[in-house]
Parts: sequence; C-alpha cells; structure tokens
Amino acid sequence: MKSSLYLALVHHPVLDRQGATVTTSITNMDVHDIARTGRTFGVRRFYVVHPVPGLRSLAERIVEHWRSGYGSRYNPSRHEALGRVEVEPDLDHVIAAVEQDSGCMPRLVATTARERSGAMRYDELARHLADGEDAWLLLFGTGYGMCDEVFDRCEAHLEPVHGVDGYNHLSVRSAAAVILDRLTRPR
Amino acid sequence: MKSSLYLALVHHPVLDRQGATVTTSITNMDVHDIARTGRTFGVRRFYVVHPVPGLRSLAERIVEHWRSGYGSRYNPSRHEALGRVEVEPDLDHVIAAVEQDSGCMPRLVATTARERSGAMRYDELARHLADGEDAWLLLFGTGYGMCDEVFDRCEAHLEPVHGVDGYNHLSVRSAAAVILDRLTRPR
Repeated sequence: MKSSLYLALVHHPVLDRQGATVTTSITNMDVHDIARTGRTFGVRRFYVVHPVPGLRSLAERIVEHWRSGYGSRYNPSRHEALGRVEVEPDLDHVIAAVEQDSGCMPRLVATTARERSGAMRYDELARHLADGEDAWLLLFGTGYGMCDEVFDRCEAHLEPVHGVDGYNHLSVRSAAAVILDRLTRPR
Repeated sequence: MKSSLYLALVHHPVLDRQGATVTTSITNMDVHDIARTGRTFGVRRFYVVHPVPGLRSLAERIVEHWRSGYGSRYNPSRHEALGRVEVEPDLDHVIAAVEQDSGCMPRLVATTARERSGAMRYDELARHLADGEDAWLLLFGTGYGMCDEVFDRCEAHLEPVHGVDGYNHLSVRSAAAVILDRLTRPR
C-alpha cells in the first residue's frame, strides 16, 4: 500500500431505525476492535468522531489508558493499536488532522450496508491504495448508517459487503474488518 | 458453497496471557457479532461452547430473547442471526449436534492467530466448501487461543490472518468476519 489510509467512525449525523437523524453513543468495543483491525491492516490513524464534549473526554481517557497509562505496559499490542486512535468533534476536524498528518487533502470514501447507485468496487479502491500517493479517508457510520449529508461530501462510496444472499447486517466492527481485508490484501 | 459450514466459539480449554489453561466468560458482543457474520456468510449453526451451566443458561436466555422473545419482533434481522445460535457444554456435544443436523460427522478445522506448522490455506478450504459435500466445523478460541488438546482433535488449522506486517492482534469477532469472507467469497 503506497497511499496513506485513514479511518473515521461517525456517531453524528447518523440514522436511527426510523430514519431520523440522531447521535449515537461511543461504544468501547468499537474503538478497540476497529483500532486493532486498523493496526493489522496498516491504517495510519483511526478517528472517533463525536460532537458531545463529555463523551469525547471519556473516549480520550480510555484511549489514554492504553496509549500512555497502565494499559500501555500491561498489553503492548493493545497499546500499539490504541496509539493510532484520535478523537475529533466532526468531519472538518478529521479532514484537517489528516491533512496535517499526510501533507495533502484526503480523498473521502463512505461505506454503507445499503445499496446506493454508483458504488465503487473494492478492487478499484485497492488499486488506488496500492499505486497512488494520495491520502484516503474511509468513513464508517454507526446506528443505521450515515446521513446523506455525509455521503454528499464523499467522492465515492464502497459497495456493501455482500455475503451469500441478501442478508448483510454485519456489525460495524465486523464490516470494517472485512472491508480492510478486501482493500489491503495482496492478490 | 455446497458443503455445510458450522462455527464454534470455544471458552474452554483456552490459554490466558501466561499460557495457563483457563475458562473465559461468554461475551454478549461475541455472540451477536459472530452470529450476524455467520448468517451473512451462510453458516448453518453457530455453537457457543461453555462448560459452566450457569453461564450457558444466561447465554440461552439472551439468545431466546432474540429467537422467540420480544427481540424477535423488535429486530427481525437480529432474530434471523441469533436463531442460528446454540449453546453447548463441550466439543463432543457440538460434534453430535452437527452430526444430527447435517447427517454426517463434521470435519474439524481450528483457527489461530499464532504460527503453527502445516497450516491449511484459505483457498484450499474454500475449494472444499465450494465443491464438496462434507460438513465442516470451524473452531474459534477466546482468550489467548485454544489449547493444544483442541488442535489435536482437528484435522487441520487455518493460517493466521496476516495484515500488512507482523501485527495480527484482531478480536475474535473481527477475525471471524475476515476468515468467513475469505472462505466464502466468490473470486
């Protein structure tokens, strides 16, 4: 992978079951699982995006435990994964952080479990990641997926993860693992 | 996939950090995530294996909520995934249950994050699943992995999930998602 790959987990604006725009809570296991998956597949930074200051502080404290607190000595592999996590209030801050880290504006790609027209194939993005020099920011939604206003800011969205039939209700933790494997595994 | 694929999540005998044989607790999110992943990729049954009756009863109660309780009406897709979960005390009971469901003795394959000699490649098992008529039981360990006595009962073990470098500390939830995708995705 020549390009730099970044992830963001979006807690707002996302949809609930009824299609209303909501803010979801930060789930500790999302942060751990996706950080470990990201580290495994060479992701540079994983941004946890949440608009509520109190929840960001809590997430920061948990991450800090593994980054430099007792957890960093207790479990070095967890330290290595959580050390790549940052907490940001919104997408603008994430984009600025990626730009600062990579030196270029990231190209945004959304992920979704729903069918949306014009989806980018995994092998297409995998080729970009392998051959190009760009920074790519891959967005994952919590709840029932990200709102259209997030998709509107992305240049593309990846095709949903299809299994053996129409059922594709993976957790965001599982979906992130499958998608990163598909994007980065040499064929 | 012509063969029948079954999963088991083993909580005993597994290793702890120090290499001692222990029994781990059942984690609710393991059951949900792996059930959803299993349903997505066409797994016939997912067995949660635990030797302690009290923890099995608790797991049964949670599964029952989604299988036939209020959860089955509240979230039908969760119902569909959790409906394939069964709770068993040990590997012998799982093997008997698979035999009853499939009509033949399952062929056992272990998964592991550690390097062990003679690993089976993903494409090899994928070919067996696509072409054969057998029942395959894929074992996942909790804690720091399954004990040797479990590997000794398997005819093969799959190669670990490798990312971009030596780091492969995925959660069992993420590993199961990646492995099932690799085994069942048409190429």
